[in-house]
Amino acid sequence: MDFDALFNAELDSLREDGNYRIFAELERKCGAFPKAKSHDTDAPDEVTVWCSNDYLGMGQHPEVIASMQNAVARHGCGAGGTRNISGNTHQHALLEAELADLHGKEAALLFTSGYVSNWAALSTLGAMLPDAVILSDEKNHASMIEGIRHSRAKKVIWKHNDPADLDRKLAALPSNATKIVAFESVYSMDGDISPMEAILDVAEKHGAMTYLDEVHAVGMYGPRGGGLSEELGLRDRITLIEGTLGKAYGVVGGYITGSVALCDFIRSFASGFIFTTALPPAVAAAARTSIRHLKHSSAERDRQKAQVAKLRMRLDALGIPHLDNPSHIIPVMIKDPVKCRQLADILMQDFGIYVQPINYPTVPKGTERLRFTPGPLHSDADIEHLVQALATLWKRCAIAHAVA
Amino acid sequence: MDFDALFNAELDSLREDGNYRIFAELERKCGAFPKAKSHDTDAPDEVTVWCSNDYLGMGQHPEVIASMQNAVARHGCGAGGTRNISGNTHQHALLEAELADLHGKEAALLFTSGYVSNWAALSTLGAMLPDAVILSDEKNHASMIEGIRHSRAKKVIWKHNDPADLDRKLAALPSNATKIVAFESVYSMDGDISPMEAILDVAEKHGAMTYLDEVHAVGMYGPRGGGLSEELGLRDRITLIEGTLGKAYGVVGGYITGSVALCDFIRSFASGFIFTTALPPAVAAAARTSIRHLKHSSAERDRQKAQVAKLRMRLDALGIPHLDNPSHIIPVMIKDPVKCRQLADILMQDFGIYVQPINYPTVPKGTERLRFTPGPLHSDADIEHLVQALATLWKRCAIAHAVA
Repeated sequence: MDFDALFNAELDSLREDGNYRIFAELERKCGAFPKAKSHDTDAPDEVTVWCSNDYLGMGQHPEVIASMQNAVARHGCGAGGTRNISGNTHQHALLEAELADLHGKEAALLFTSGYVSNWAALSTLGAMLPDAVILSDEKNHASMIEGIRHSRAKKVIWKHNDPADLDRKLAALPSNATKIVAFESVYSMDGDISPMEAILDVAEKHGAMTYLDEVHAVGMYGPRGGGLSEELGLRDRITLIEGTLGKAYGVVGGYITGSVALCDFIRSFASGFIFTTALPPAVAAAARTSIRHLKHSSAERDRQKAQVAKLRMRLDALGIPHLDNPSHIIPVMIKDPVKCRQLADILMQDFGIYVQPINYPTVPKGTERLRFTPGPLHSDADIEHLVQALATLWKRCAIAHAVA
Repeated sequence: MDFDALFNAELDSLREDGNYRIFAELERKCGAFPKAKSHDTDAPDEVTVWCSNDYLGMGQHPEVIASMQNAVARHGCGAGGTRNISGNTHQHALLEAELADLHGKEAALLFTSGYVSNWAALSTLGAMLPDAVILSDEKNHASMIEGIRHSRAKKVIWKHNDPADLDRKLAALPSNATKIVAFESVYSMDGDISPMEAILDVAEKHGAMTYLDEVHAVGMYGPRGGGLSEELGLRDRITLIEGTLGKAYGVVGGYITGSVALCDFIRSFASGFIFTTALPPAVAAAARTSIRHLKHSSAERDRQKAQVAKLRMRLDALGIPHLDNPSHIIPVMIKDPVKCRQLADILMQDFGIYVQPINYPTVPKGTERLRFTPGPLHSDADIEHLVQALATLWKRCAIAHAVA
């Protein structure tokens, strides 16, 4: 059987739809972020990254760098095993204590990624709790969707950010069900924020457990970076808070926090936790340093907010439409995969601006977009260069439309 | 609803069966491996690790350490995004080229862990290929089992390492099925090795794709560390070779290698690849250095083989039974979870020997064991200390049996 022909047929169909993905090849330059060297032949040598999830530039923070380098020197490069079989180190224990403190929870559990933390935790809860029903916001991240699917628990999808719909759907469930309400605080593609208090009110009314994904909020919201649940003073009402070390904290890895019993339960039964090599101790050390820094310093958060506001204001001034939302994420809707890719290519090639076109399956077809994530290290000049480039392209498109 | 009570009930049942897991808390000491500092109050301050999957001690190799530290200095701590959205760096491209070369394949694709590489690749192949049937060796790793389960493809389990049974099961399938034979080279818990050539003969006879997990073989077998498929000259007959960067290579991460079309297919459709932050560039750099070193140096492999042979010989001389196998893994069967834990505790507390008790679900109930992985950095004195400790415990057990 010609397997390559099977693979190529599927890839061709992606290409025809304009959804075939081409990765930009970058070289991050420590100290120069958000500037990076490009290895793509048709791009300038240096580009400005406008779509990073290293939201605060912590991946190049001197303390975080030093922490990782020192830990490599002291402990070596890898953990050498699963958490159970020789891979559990003091650095992992310290990081989990730090994470529990960050969210005001009794305990935390570390995973190799945010994807795995969602997938492993939800699949274990759904599979093992008696008569489990997972009520999932319709815009939840792929990792949550796959975790719920893997659990084979009953799944009920509720309308995005709609507590009234959640209320109706909870009310329709049998009384013996173990109900788990799964949602996010900041939705990364639209940048909108969930009505957390109303959702918690509804969940509590029905005796449901709450599962909150804060991956696009930790480090950036709340006085100590504890996410929107901290900022809104709601963290104690949430059963499980999930987060990442790979975005605002600038390193890699995922985690959950909750009661001792909850974390021990996931630790003891989740295949995706048990059967995988632990994160390197040096990664744990660097992540902990980053968390500790952002517990005490608000400078990065303040500057990020300022630059986000500036970019929005300049886009408005130049008449470039963008999705309105209260977060740090600025989506500019293009609504066509081919145009989205073309615009991104021109921005990269002609202006040295790197923003990845966001196409299906990351967003639904017809909602393709450019998604900008301004951070504290984007200068005012970077912002002006970006908006002028966009204005130029918008003018070209308008002319193209006029003569078409 | 009292969720903690639900969790605690499940945890209590683990405890009653002797399967509740207690992690040893270590502090790896770079330069001193396999010695480590213990943070457990009832263990000596320094212990010798006998159950690491950092099989060759590459996690503390000076070249690998320097590579990781330099890459952190140059590129920072994290990748800052998924491979598609700003997280694809030159270091990832270099590592994938290195991995393709390692296995003599056209292409490679990197994942955040070996678990994720198996889960994501098998779930995508099984879900997307027309009429897919995955034929899975009954002792395949949890990550393969979960990937197959997640794919919802038809699954056929064949007897462990039994090509005749595989032949019968392939023959019974409809002719239009896309057949995928999934197996490992070295099975990590028994240390046995699959009859690779016979399995490939059978698979080819039936036009089946072959999926080989080499995680416990890469770096250690084959003249360049390309695994058993390289050692046996069979790599060109295998469709997909999967491996890890977290065991013999001493860092963290997983990968697949195969044709350009195959890797592009998984890259384009696997949720567990698409929606996750890329490994840090520094992890990619360190892993590449480790792979390159072991492509040229056989000293670590030679010394590992010598120490494995020595430990087996000394165990035989002292009458301590162990599973016979042709690999680097030496299982000493205890066959009871409580005794297995007790023996491990005594070895740790009285002798400073750290070997994790391997209980359910890592191995079937009733096959609990201590699993020793001698490496090039275990000295002859380490080996003698271990076998004398085991001999002492065996004598105590014999006395206990005699007076019971």
